[in-house]
Amino acid sequence: MIFTVQIKVMPLKDLLDPQGKAVMGGLQNLGLNTVADVRIGKHIDLQIEAETKEAAVAIAEDAAKKLLANPVMEVYEIQVTPNP
Amino acid sequence: MIFTVQIKVMPLKDLLDPQGKAVMGGLQNLGLNTVADVRIGKHIDLQIEAETKEAAVAIAEDAAKKLLANPVMEVYEIQVTPNP
Repeated sequence: MIFTVQIKVMPLKDLLDPQGKAVMGGLQNLGLNTVADVRIGKHIDLQIEAETKEAAVAIAEDAAKKLLANPVMEVYEIQVTPNP
Repeated sequence: MIFTVQIKVMPLKDLLDPQGKAVMGGLQNLGLNTVADVRIGKHIDLQIEAETKEAAVAIAEDAAKKLLANPVMEVYEIQVTPNP
């Protein structure tokens, strides 16, 4: 069975996010002054072949730890959605 | 009132995603062979000052169209979450 797993990887709250700061400057130049803060991370969609939802999450955890997120600078969040 | 708005920007389904392909190769080198597909996009968290949820979404739509997503290559999805 194929599971769709979404992984959200964001910079840690305490760290500067230069990309977010740059985008915020851009938004203000466009006149969108009500935006108070911007943070930018990655969104990764995986299609994982697994027997159970738990097995799919375990594989996604493994992938996030080993390759997708840098724990020194980033946090990740895993979400399994029903397959369309 | 401050709203937390999440924008997910992903490459269009019909387009190649070279970053995703590269990550998939990396995962296979790590032995995670059950991953069938990988697609990588951006995740943007905005803090928006607005009167109502609808106003916050409208600002986020505007920001996505004008700066955050390239409609030729990407689709975006907006989600307002209750403020923590």
